[in-house]
Amino acid sequence: MDKADYQLVIIGGGPAGLTAGLYAARARLNTVLVEKTTLGGQVLITHWVDNYPGVVDGAAGYDLIEKWTAHARRFGLETRSANVVSLDLKNSIKILNLENGDRITARAVIICTGGSPGKLNVPGEKEFTGKGVSYCATCDGPFYKGREIAVVGGGNTAIQEAVHLTRFAAKVTVIHRRGELRATKVVQEKAFADERIEFILNAEVEEIRGGPDGVEELRLRHRDGSVSSLAVTGVFILIGVVPNNEILPRDALELDEYGFIITDTEMRTALPGVFAAGDIRSKNFRQIVTAAGEGATAELSAEHYLANMDEQ
Amino acid sequence: MDKADYQLVIIGGGPAGLTAGLYAARARLNTVLVEKTTLGGQVLITHWVDNYPGVVDGAAGYDLIEKWTAHARRFGLETRSANVVSLDLKNSIKILNLENGDRITARAVIICTGGSPGKLNVPGEKEFTGKGVSYCATCDGPFYKGREIAVVGGGNTAIQEAVHLTRFAAKVTVIHRRGELRATKVVQEKAFADERIEFILNAEVEEIRGGPDGVEELRLRHRDGSVSSLAVTGVFILIGVVPNNEILPRDALELDEYGFIITDTEMRTALPGVFAAGDIRSKNFRQIVTAAGEGATAELSAEHYLANMDEQ
Repeated sequence: MDKADYQLVIIGGGPAGLTAGLYAARARLNTVLVEKTTLGGQVLITHWVDNYPGVVDGAAGYDLIEKWTAHARRFGLETRSANVVSLDLKNSIKILNLENGDRITARAVIICTGGSPGKLNVPGEKEFTGKGVSYCATCDGPFYKGREIAVVGGGNTAIQEAVHLTRFAAKVTVIHRRGELRATKVVQEKAFADERIEFILNAEVEEIRGGPDGVEELRLRHRDGSVSSLAVTGVFILIGVVPNNEILPRDALELDEYGFIITDTEMRTALPGVFAAGDIRSKNFRQIVTAAGEGATAELSAEHYLANMDEQ
Repeated sequence: MDKADYQLVIIGGGPAGLTAGLYAARARLNTVLVEKTTLGGQVLITHWVDNYPGVVDGAAGYDLIEKWTAHARRFGLETRSANVVSLDLKNSIKILNLENGDRITARAVIICTGGSPGKLNVPGEKEFTGKGVSYCATCDGPFYKGREIAVVGGGNTAIQEAVHLTRFAAKVTVIHRRGELRATKVVQEKAFADERIEFILNAEVEEIRGGPDGVEELRLRHRDGSVSSLAVTGVFILIGVVPNNEILPRDALELDEYGFIITDTEMRTALPGVFAAGDIRSKNFRQIVTAAGEGATAELSAEHYLANMDEQ
């Protein structure tokens, strides 16, 4: 067999990738974790994490993930900052092609590229991104001190961040296209109890309008067909996750209808030696602790795959 | 529909059950977690946990799980100390029959009964349990100060605990039936570096012999057919996990050949409203973080199931 640079390469440094990396480092596999930006994934832009088991009083996303990174480094995990542009996964040596022209080769790959915030795809959204349109309350909340703003979405992230944004904004209007929020009850209760938060249900944002200073109003279409406008200077779009799948070879990997990778319960994809974990996987629920569990399982599956390869 | 005592009942309070409970309490589901002994599961008898992501320097199993319990209680999880003797899971109202004659009813069940240490099933094992035969190094290690003891097994738990036992014992002999250990490399390295640990590979314990004061020697059968004896006053049997499945209805739940529950990737069993998570599940790898991830997924699946029930 030709020689590969590594036994294992992990693509992506969020909770799934870091856990896989921690396990791989403890297993003394010759491993590299490749991340294009900063280690931590979407946890970095999460204001507060209250449901990672054992962190009794919760923690800021940034503080939580800093510990994960330190934990993986304690076992000697090698990480590399690089942008992967394409993958060749069909042969027994897997190839990662990097933006700078370099290649990384490995005998097994765990894909943990995660997801990104979903977009509304309405007029004005792109134009005003960074000028009133945001996908990250933790990042941009402090810019809206004393302002009236909107949050679009009805899930846990949207409602949690609506509550968080009341620290800065004078008023937060939650806009959700359904008649009921999807967020878990304890999160809903907190939002309903806060008089600075208002709710417009059964409505969708049709257009984001503004001027040279940024966002000025949202045009809303209600389920009954009527149209209204809401004056805000900021809008946080928190409507879920889309897969970071640009680099995935569509002819080789099996993806679901939304573009997430299909695996079995042991995190194996249909391709031998290729595993996936975390938000990039096709699944119903995306949590930090589920990503971590999947990262551990993916690494143990990869270890098993590599051990059986050696025996040939 | 008839009324049930609870929306959700969780059976078992290890990492899977506690995480499911934490999520259910945050979701404000009317939930009870039933545990027959102490909350914490096998983590309670784990000396040191080094690979739960974010606990940078590791933690004693007892300290780790105490935080999980506090975390679930912070959200108001109700727990009940009771011994479940049988389950009736076929109808839309699930029934738990308790040892004291009481019943608990619920509309959904998450089974997290976990596993127990595997047994050798050799002569003398039962007779000398508690008199030199142990399945828990954390519990019984301190009794063997200055003694010569044996550890049976070659996995992570066995080898980690062999290292741990050198704090007490003068000499630890690891007996493993294969020619190579299964433990992850970093764990093996630590054991090989410790001169108080010796290894007898390709050998099985055939009999445990002793007298009124307890264990005196092990009879070993080697792969080449020869027999030898090893003088020890204690033997720790750490050969993996068997399912705690005594209460499971064999005619209703689908179990694998070893007696673990088969689920899909969303932790659903073949029975509507019945979910499973953690060591009781049929799977390749049993870790604290995988159990936790599965507990979260099982609860979210149960929540989804209950929400759809309500809509009927």
